[in-house]
Amino acid sequence: MAKVIGLTCNANRFYSATASKVKARKYVLTKYFEGEPKKSDFQIVEEELPELKDGEILTEAEFLSVDPYMRAYMIGYKLPTDMIGGQVAKIIASRNKKFPEGKYVAGSFGWRTHTVCNPSVAPTIGFLPTTLLPDISPHPVSLGLGVLGMPGNTAHFGLKEICHAKPGETIAITGAAGAVGSHVGQIAKALGCRVIGFAGTDDKCQYLEKDLGFDKAYNYKTANIRNALKDGAPNQVDCYFDNVGGEISTTIMNYMNKYGRVAVCGSISSYNDMKLPKVTILQPAIVFKELKVEGFLVNRWIDRWDEGINANLKLLREGKLKYNEKIYHGFDNMVEALVGMLRGENTGKAIVKVK
Amino acid sequence: MAKVIGLTCNANRFYSATASKVKARKYVLTKYFEGEPKKSDFQIVEEELPELKDGEILTEAEFLSVDPYMRAYMIGYKLPTDMIGGQVAKIIASRNKKFPEGKYVAGSFGWRTHTVCNPSVAPTIGFLPTTLLPDISPHPVSLGLGVLGMPGNTAHFGLKEICHAKPGETIAITGAAGAVGSHVGQIAKALGCRVIGFAGTDDKCQYLEKDLGFDKAYNYKTANIRNALKDGAPNQVDCYFDNVGGEISTTIMNYMNKYGRVAVCGSISSYNDMKLPKVTILQPAIVFKELKVEGFLVNRWIDRWDEGINANLKLLREGKLKYNEKIYHGFDNMVEALVGMLRGENTGKAIVKVK
Repeated sequence: MAKVIGLTCNANRFYSATASKVKARKYVLTKYFEGEPKKSDFQIVEEELPELKDGEILTEAEFLSVDPYMRAYMIGYKLPTDMIGGQVAKIIASRNKKFPEGKYVAGSFGWRTHTVCNPSVAPTIGFLPTTLLPDISPHPVSLGLGVLGMPGNTAHFGLKEICHAKPGETIAITGAAGAVGSHVGQIAKALGCRVIGFAGTDDKCQYLEKDLGFDKAYNYKTANIRNALKDGAPNQVDCYFDNVGGEISTTIMNYMNKYGRVAVCGSISSYNDMKLPKVTILQPAIVFKELKVEGFLVNRWIDRWDEGINANLKLLREGKLKYNEKIYHGFDNMVEALVGMLRGENTGKAIVKVK
Repeated sequence: MAKVIGLTCNANRFYSATASKVKARKYVLTKYFEGEPKKSDFQIVEEELPELKDGEILTEAEFLSVDPYMRAYMIGYKLPTDMIGGQVAKIIASRNKKFPEGKYVAGSFGWRTHTVCNPSVAPTIGFLPTTLLPDISPHPVSLGLGVLGMPGNTAHFGLKEICHAKPGETIAITGAAGAVGSHVGQIAKALGCRVIGFAGTDDKCQYLEKDLGFDKAYNYKTANIRNALKDGAPNQVDCYFDNVGGEISTTIMNYMNKYGRVAVCGSISSYNDMKLPKVTILQPAIVFKELKVEGFLVNRWIDRWDEGINANLKLLREGKLKYNEKIYHGFDNMVEALVGMLRGENTGKAIVKVK
């Protein structure tokens, strides 16, 4: 599970870029989600932005992120509230020398088109900082929402600090074709692990095996999970990177080796349910195999943020890290993108190109 | 969950103590348990023991242990097999100077009356060593099966090495009136924790609060668990010592603080089921609270065995550790004792006095 990404900037002010004032459009959540998110749960509101103060920048969103955590987190906010989320935005005006006009930032600005903020001010606890994107050409800046952003760091730190994956070990990954899962598998391959993935379509499985180098990938909707594990993990499973929760997780944990490590990153299988589902009890496997099962939010490593970004950039430049993006188009289609991602339409990272 | 305790000695030999040969009686499991264990799952077999070789001792069981793990473990053995279990036995003949006649040992001898073994030989992997009991007078030697034995070390190491309980933290314990749970709570109190327990009768709860000093204890069969947690843990729960699994564990984990630690010691609520039960999914709580949930078997600390025994002996001598024993009588009543313990008849440690 990724961390909360919300507004780190004060958006309730007005800005005059030049002569005319810049207007931002933003999503305000007015109803708690029930089942799948709906467009009618939101209002799109227009607001004028304030003049820039010293240290502040004005950004224009180019790519907005839709991530699984968004479905789970909003219940914790009092309504109405601005919708949370990460974005990659271009600096279109600046009174901060470290953040010059024309550069790109990744920021927790929420679902909005324009933002005024001071990127040098530490973010509210629980939120990610506003960071200048490194030069990643010839790759697109949208990677700041994917392999070089929050999902990338989730994969990096989750695998290294929670799974403690070692060369020669076998790792299983659910939600394997998603932004985080597909990334975890590639780091694990680079580490020298055997990697098996579970995803929701045959096409995704083929992508994982053929393009990303997973040793085996299985369609969890059609495969017998136990048989898949026997086939794909002849030495059983040492590490499990759990993005989905659900019954499949119990089955995998029952196929793990003694002292196995489970990184619980998300539980997407249950996010749309009004009441949490019941699954076969985990404790017997946890006891008898002496498993260590740990949940995490990536903001735990906020002080080491650049370490993760740089490690992933290195893998990218070495050709050991591939990426895929499912691009939705248009600021007005954020909800469709969120729902599409929750349904598993994406292979790799789901993002929205604002214009 | 306690570790496997099985036969560490060769029992298929014959012994002549003096002129006449000593005969042992033992339980042989001939049918896998279905639901509650039954007397008809066993045969009681008589065998003659071999002569003592150099280094060996002959012991006579005084107390036999019945523990939850016995219900869960036998499925891993090929039948017929000698029943596993710990006992406190008197050395009645010895050819080992370190283990003189008249002293008591705790050993993983199984359900049998007499045993020949070499206590200096390292046990098979997964089994506990045969240890000479320290002088624990005026306390009974049966404590070698309880607070000064495997359950005591399970409590000691589970709380310190898995829960990492710190002064001022709140710990919740299920199966709180059992051998391990009642001990964990007392160590936690000695550490300066707030301790709340869940047990299966009002009498047990009264015992935990009045005799053992638990801050609060609740009858899980009649209490609303969520309300009990609100009442007993105003600062929510930092550590959870889980002896039972089941729905109550999900409820408790949902009431934990960020970075809480869960020591999964057992899952007694599901041991009698042929098929593992379904409970509300744990993953959302594990992710959002970033919990660390770890299963353990106490033989992990076999190299530090004496450290645990001595720590508990110190608490006992300081008056900070109380104990209670539910004593069943007679070698022929082992199965009744096992079933009684699994049903929760015991407050404290369930043992069988052989004669």
